[in-house]
Amino acid sequence: MLNTVIIGASGYTGAELAKMVNRHPQLSLSRLYVSKNSVDAGKPLSSLYGELSGIVDLELEGLDPQDIPQLFPNVDVVLLATAHEVSHDIAAALLDCACIVFDLSGAFRVPNTDFYQQFYGFEHRYPELLEEAVYGLAEHNAAQVAQTRLIAVPGCYTTAALTALKPLANANLISDSHKSVINATSGVSGAGRKASMGSSFCEVSLQPYGVFNHRHQPEIVHHLGQDVIFTPHLGSYKRGILATMNVVLKAGTTPEQVQQAYVSAYQDQPIVRLLDGAWPKLQSVVNTPFLDLAWQQQGQDLIVVSAEDNLLKGAASQAMQCINIRFGFDMMESLL
Amino acid sequence: MLNTVIIGASGYTGAELAKMVNRHPQLSLSRLYVSKNSVDAGKPLSSLYGELSGIVDLELEGLDPQDIPQLFPNVDVVLLATAHEVSHDIAAALLDCACIVFDLSGAFRVPNTDFYQQFYGFEHRYPELLEEAVYGLAEHNAAQVAQTRLIAVPGCYTTAALTALKPLANANLISDSHKSVINATSGVSGAGRKASMGSSFCEVSLQPYGVFNHRHQPEIVHHLGQDVIFTPHLGSYKRGILATMNVVLKAGTTPEQVQQAYVSAYQDQPIVRLLDGAWPKLQSVVNTPFLDLAWQQQGQDLIVVSAEDNLLKGAASQAMQCINIRFGFDMMESLL
Amino acid sequence: MLNTVIIGASGYTGAELAKMVNRHPQLSLSRLYVSKNSVDAGKPLSSLYGELSGIVDLELEGLDPQDIPQLFPNVDVVLLATAHEVSHDIAAALLDCACIVFDLSGAFRVPNTDFYQQFYGFEHRYPELLEEAVYGLAEHNAAQVAQTRLIAVPGCYTTAALTALKPLANANLISDSHKSVINATSGVSGAGRKASMGSSFCEVSLQPYGVFNHRHQPEIVHHLGQDVIFTPHLGSYKRGILATMNVVLKAGTTPEQVQQAYVSAYQDQPIVRLLDGAWPKLQSVVNTPFLDLAWQQQGQDLIVVSAEDNLLKGAASQAMQCINIRFGFDMMESLL
Amino acid sequence: MLNTVIIGASGYTGAELAKMVNRHPQLSLSRLYVSKNSVDAGKPLSSLYGELSGIVDLELEGLDPQDIPQLFPNVDVVLLATAHEVSHDIAAALLDCACIVFDLSGAFRVPNTDFYQQFYGFEHRYPELLEEAVYGLAEHNAAQVAQTRLIAVPGCYTTAALTALKPLANANLISDSHKSVINATSGVSGAGRKASMGSSFCEVSLQPYGVFNHRHQPEIVHHLGQDVIFTPHLGSYKRGILATMNVVLKAGTTPEQVQQAYVSAYQDQPIVRLLDGAWPKLQSVVNTPFLDLAWQQQGQDLIVVSAEDNLLKGAASQAMQCINIRFGFDMMESLL
Repeated sequence: MLNTVIIGASGYTGAELAKMVNRHPQLSLSRLYVSKNSVDAGKPLSSLYGELSGIVDLELEGLDPQDIPQLFPNVDVVLLATAHEVSHDIAAALLDCACIVFDLSGAFRVPNTDFYQQFYGFEHRYPELLEEAVYGLAEHNAAQVAQTRLIAVPGCYTTAALTALKPLANANLISDSHKSVINATSGVSGAGRKASMGSSFCEVSLQPYGVFNHRHQPEIVHHLGQDVIFTPHLGSYKRGILATMNVVLKAGTTPEQVQQAYVSAYQDQPIVRLLDGAWPKLQSVVNTPFLDLAWQQQGQDLIVVSAEDNLLKGAASQAMQCINIRFGFDMMESLL
Repeated sequence: MLNTVIIGASGYTGAELAKMVNRHPQLSLSRLYVSKNSVDAGKPLSSLYGELSGIVDLELEGLDPQDIPQLFPNVDVVLLATAHEVSHDIAAALLDCACIVFDLSGAFRVPNTDFYQQFYGFEHRYPELLEEAVYGLAEHNAAQVAQTRLIAVPGCYTTAALTALKPLANANLISDSHKSVINATSGVSGAGRKASMGSSFCEVSLQPYGVFNHRHQPEIVHHLGQDVIFTPHLGSYKRGILATMNVVLKAGTTPEQVQQAYVSAYQDQPIVRLLDGAWPKLQSVVNTPFLDLAWQQQGQDLIVVSAEDNLLKGAASQAMQCINIRFGFDMMESLL
Repeated sequence: MLNTVIIGASGYTGAELAKMVNRHPQLSLSRLYVSKNSVDAGKPLSSLYGELSGIVDLELEGLDPQDIPQLFPNVDVVLLATAHEVSHDIAAALLDCACIVFDLSGAFRVPNTDFYQQFYGFEHRYPELLEEAVYGLAEHNAAQVAQTRLIAVPGCYTTAALTALKPLANANLISDSHKSVINATSGVSGAGRKASMGSSFCEVSLQPYGVFNHRHQPEIVHHLGQDVIFTPHLGSYKRGILATMNVVLKAGTTPEQVQQAYVSAYQDQPIVRLLDGAWPKLQSVVNTPFLDLAWQQQGQDLIVVSAEDNLLKGAASQAMQCINIRFGFDMMESLL
Repeated sequence: MLNTVIIGASGYTGAELAKMVNRHPQLSLSRLYVSKNSVDAGKPLSSLYGELSGIVDLELEGLDPQDIPQLFPNVDVVLLATAHEVSHDIAAALLDCACIVFDLSGAFRVPNTDFYQQFYGFEHRYPELLEEAVYGLAEHNAAQVAQTRLIAVPGCYTTAALTALKPLANANLISDSHKSVINATSGVSGAGRKASMGSSFCEVSLQPYGVFNHRHQPEIVHHLGQDVIFTPHLGSYKRGILATMNVVLKAGTTPEQVQQAYVSAYQDQPIVRLLDGAWPKLQSVVNTPFLDLAWQQQGQDLIVVSAEDNLLKGAASQAMQCINIRFGFDMMESLL
């Protein structure tokens, strides 16, 4: 049994992680932490998430980063569902305790300190960890995930986009003279668990945001290796991301080549479902670890659509996939 | 044209009031106020409510209560969409300026200072205004509304309940040995425009609250003259209240007596619609000034159901009804 | 491994049953049936429920009741998620094949043929099976469920109401001179999977229905042993039932007696969660097998609130509880 | 007063038309028709739309097209909220009665009979009417609308797309080597008022449809004069369309040129609101006649977003704008 701890456990992703770790036969959920000053410190997780009552009643403890050297030596697995800056600040100390760290924030996703200055607004003080971290896009980077001690789990929009576009880019099918266009809509849980006017029930209504400046755009570009235009939208529902992508293919690309690109990428991957004769639909993926994918071509124009639960394949269940890969557990363990 | 001002204009009720005052041919909307320290001071109302763009672009001004004697002498009508304490504190100064005051808070709804100590937690320092204020339940108190300078517009749940129960109580049809049971569900806008965990999009889910201790219970009891049990619920939608009431009638009460009670109360009232062969449905009243009512009897048991828009008949449009009554305008002016 | 078959598998309850049977280590899901003329015959279940893709792709086969004697001799467990009349017509033939039958329809819930004539509008031709059937309210009838071959799984509203009221009735705490009042709101899935104006997206809006004449009222009364008034409502959401009940207690009933009634009924029952300091909320039970319960007393008045997923504790997971009880499996097997 | 009739009045658009005609001071709503065999024939409109109770209680009458010559000679204005084929079949007879016809179907939107064969699947037998009909995109074709007897009111998606793209195309700013990409999401009311699995409450979930083959694509292309890729989506809400468009501008296009294109097109148009510093949001336009528009440029890439109520600016209120234009009434009459 691996001694497992979640830091930042009070958020929506933290709660999903707790549920999955709890049912994993090889993991033992020993502690849940929140920041020292959190109003939730001292409460059982199930007081925030009634559905966990009787399942995960563990208390949320306030964590002072200074106590990490004392607290974590016997911890095997740490899941960071923390703010970017917090992950940045504490990852090194956790690695020093010999923990395997799965970070769900953006703090280690792009191996480039300039990226953090420009898009996250802070100076990254761990360039060597940036270099060492493996990007946990489970279907694409399993070999590296299996051998690292620091996994940067991808962003929710990024997973929806890269899973759809990477096979095309890998097969060199995307036109060089057209940027791929990604339009995606996310449920409100993507904004995190907090009181704000923007996620207030009566204010939420379908709307774009972060136009030309959302942090997931450069994350996508870095890991895809091609430029894209990404426009996120807030949808008036709790969970799920649907991404519709317009790609211009290189002249002469055949439907068979596209089909081949997707099949070879995902035929052995249970979590990515290639739909046949239907388009992805949020309801089919919400509360599941799946990412559904379908596409259609007309001449050089390709439309690809992906759907996932932003809190699961877009966060918690992808982290769990990475745990299963890292420790050699069954690929699907605790995902369903 | 009556010079009209709204205080507390940034909230959901304030915005509805602004819309209605703006389209009223005898009212001139001159100013919108918020509290002096509000983050919204200085913004146009339409920056908070995009639907008002091009319709009501007036700026929200910060109001210091001390300035009332200077600012309000030429104001004819003041609508208070303010917190209870604020209404309590400023009503007298406004009346001193000879304004006619329509207060949508709870500050003057029950002529009993103990009531405020017990249920609102503050000492009411204007017992004479409590005495003077008229309860603006438009279909029942029109004669008094027409002659007063201080109208206490009823609460949203209270309107839904009293409109359904008052005709029965007036006709002396309710059993003395059974409390009427009121179960009502309100949309989230009833909690007001503010950032809070409780009205955060991902947290809202059908649930009771205020069991045995909601402030509208004693307000109902006072104006009905009979005891009731009232259980409010939060529903996962933006607007509307549906109230289902169980009444035990006096032995021998006939369906004709019940019918007669309702028909005589509302046959000349365009806003209360007595449905025939259908039950009230939120969708039929939301964004309208109507209150829909239907009932069915089985022996001594009566089930009455009412539906209204909590921001309109439950607040803003009832205030407008009171304005129309007070100044002798057409009953339906600006309601539709 | 018990050979398990679901009849009526295309509906919302059928799909939930398929999911649970599929993950049950002692059950083997061998066949899914729909009626012979169903438009869904021949389709994989996952073509109707995208979330089951890759999990339950079994085909829905058209069943001719005449073929039951040939098809079912090797079947151990049959789950009927069929219309009342269909269950009524085929149960005997299934029992003749020595199947253990779990019927989720209303066909065998009340041991009284008059009941069916009056409330279901058909003549019940199996009075001996009515007598034999055990009502599968899992927390209350486990001993009988364990020994029968025909289990009538309770209705969704009925489960929400009886779980809340039965401990009070059993302890003889409810006043004889007052009917308990049950107000409940159900998600649209309660109406089943079908195209109808009433469940059309743009038409759904909070509204009562079945006032004084819903079939679950006499079902509740029969199994409670006391009269009640039951008013169901349609809510504008997909899943879940919240029931708010007003009970008048016998004079002198103490809070301790009420507490004792609930604790003794449910302290060893993992599925019924007695909330402490919070009211049931749909979000905490939807997609879970739990029923959450809380109450508050004021003098003789008691308000009890229960919440459940209408498709799970109100149907499929309660059936699974009954299977676990009947065959001696772990109480919680496959419920989570 | 112009004698006004609505044919196809039972649908969502018909009901909106009835509400607006009813409050128009120069129009008199004399009759509401549905098809002769409609289940709604003989019912008052308000029995289908509770919100119209007491406002428009006119009966829906069954119309036999053969009776048009007898019934319509004194009718001034006919609004067709009918199926494409019905509009196609009856428009000529209505014009023969000297009615001015506002057709909200697709039957006369593109002056090309091949278009109907290819995209609507029927042979268009009125090529001369196709030639005569004016496309009622109110802000762009007012001069022609003012002089015609047959107005083809644009489709909902088309209005959202053309209002955003036409100023750019008119100013010759769009790159010839890139198709503009239109991604739009519509509420379920766009599918019309009918019982179908696709618009069943529990089945609706964000999903694309009509990929590469929706009828509004060629309608947009014809009236824009440039090729586009259009991907519609069904959103899980009742009303509203949000369209996000990606345009590649000609090299060297400046932000001032884009600004100038929009300002010159819409500065005198009260219905199209150019937002400054905010993105369109469904809530700001639903239940209003407005279309909100905003854009942002980055190099040659332009993102334009429009939002409207699909039943209003996308159908009924645009028809009313056309009536106001055609008869010289105030532009905004009855729109708010």
